[in-house]
Amino acid sequence: MPGYDGEKEQVLKRLRRVEGQVRGLQRMVEEDTYCIDVLTQVSATTRALQAVALQLLDDHLAHCVVDAAREGGPAAEAKVKEASDAIARLVRS
Amino acid sequence: MPGYDGEKEQVLKRLRRVEGQVRGLQRMVEEDTYCIDVLTQVSATTRALQAVALQLLDDHLAHCVVDAAREGGPAAEAKVKEASDAIARLVRS
Amino acid sequence: MPGYDGEKEQVLKRLRRVEGQVRGLQRMVEEDTYCIDVLTQVSATTRALQAVALQLLDDHLAHCVVDAAREGGPAAEAKVKEASDAIARLVRS
Amino acid sequence: MPGYDGEKEQVLKRLRRVEGQVRGLQRMVEEDTYCIDVLTQVSATTRALQAVALQLLDDHLAHCVVDAAREGGPAAEAKVKEASDAIARLVRS
Repeated sequence: MPGYDGEKEQVLKRLRRVEGQVRGLQRMVEEDTYCIDVLTQVSATTRALQAVALQLLDDHLAHCVVDAAREGGPAAEAKVKEASDAIARLVRS
Repeated sequence: MPGYDGEKEQVLKRLRRVEGQVRGLQRMVEEDTYCIDVLTQVSATTRALQAVALQLLDDHLAHCVVDAAREGGPAAEAKVKEASDAIARLVRS
Repeated sequence: MPGYDGEKEQVLKRLRRVEGQVRGLQRMVEEDTYCIDVLTQVSATTRALQAVALQLLDDHLAHCVVDAAREGGPAAEAKVKEASDAIARLVRS
Repeated sequence: MPGYDGEKEQVLKRLRRVEGQVRGLQRMVEEDTYCIDVLTQVSATTRALQAVALQLLDDHLAHCVVDAAREGGPAAEAKVKEASDAIARLVRS
């Protein structure tokens, strides 16, 4: 399924960038960068991670939830409940 | 549809409680309550509002998105996109 | 203290606006407004509440924490700890 | 200053753990781990990053802001303003 693979590659690319940001944060701390500048970078990294989460969720709704909804029955309800719980964890984190 | 009405009544109940919390906050500020105690109450009110949002979203996924998925086609895709955007606004707010 | 009173009035004004937003949300739900539009309004209300919290925190740092820091000793440390805990609750809510 | 160094080492330790979590996320995506399980891990990583931010902020308030408050004058006000802005970015990210 080329669609999935394209999405997977995009998520991996974003995660590698987040890894680079986290390593950059370590360097900043090691070099005693001013606290507020480190904090600004932490906020940027948190937002990058949230963007990963939102993409994963979007893909999940578009594929798994929609497929389950089409099949119908209790499986569809379970998928919606599972997605809602994941969204709640995201909103609260 | 009795299901919808039950959900609507529950959302309204939660919103009335949030309104009470916001009025309580005004009283606290008027009576010069200690700042940190007001802040604790603001955090509780924010969480109550988020719970409203999560319930609305859950109901939306379970009804509108699932119904659109069953019908299929571009309408289903549009509903998923719309829900994803709403989730993104929530996560970022 | 005129400074405090100006800040207090501003916080009250913001809270009254938040109360209006929450009542607007109830009307939207009663009139069966489309879910996604209600959600957009909930996000706006949450952001308005966060702005109240940030103002309260700002005032608290500028007055209580700065005053305690000037007096020094364990009271200053306790104030910083208390403010940090309030910030943590905010960030997590 | 041994206090600062202890804090610095602790922040670095947390950041190295976050880096490990982000690499774990890449592995999960490469191995096609179920979306919802990846999302749960993203939420945990976001919380770990927030904990880094809260520690940095706590240290900043306890050292820089308290020191500036003791010196007084416009520098103290500027430090409080700068800290408030950093808190606002955190709360909104």
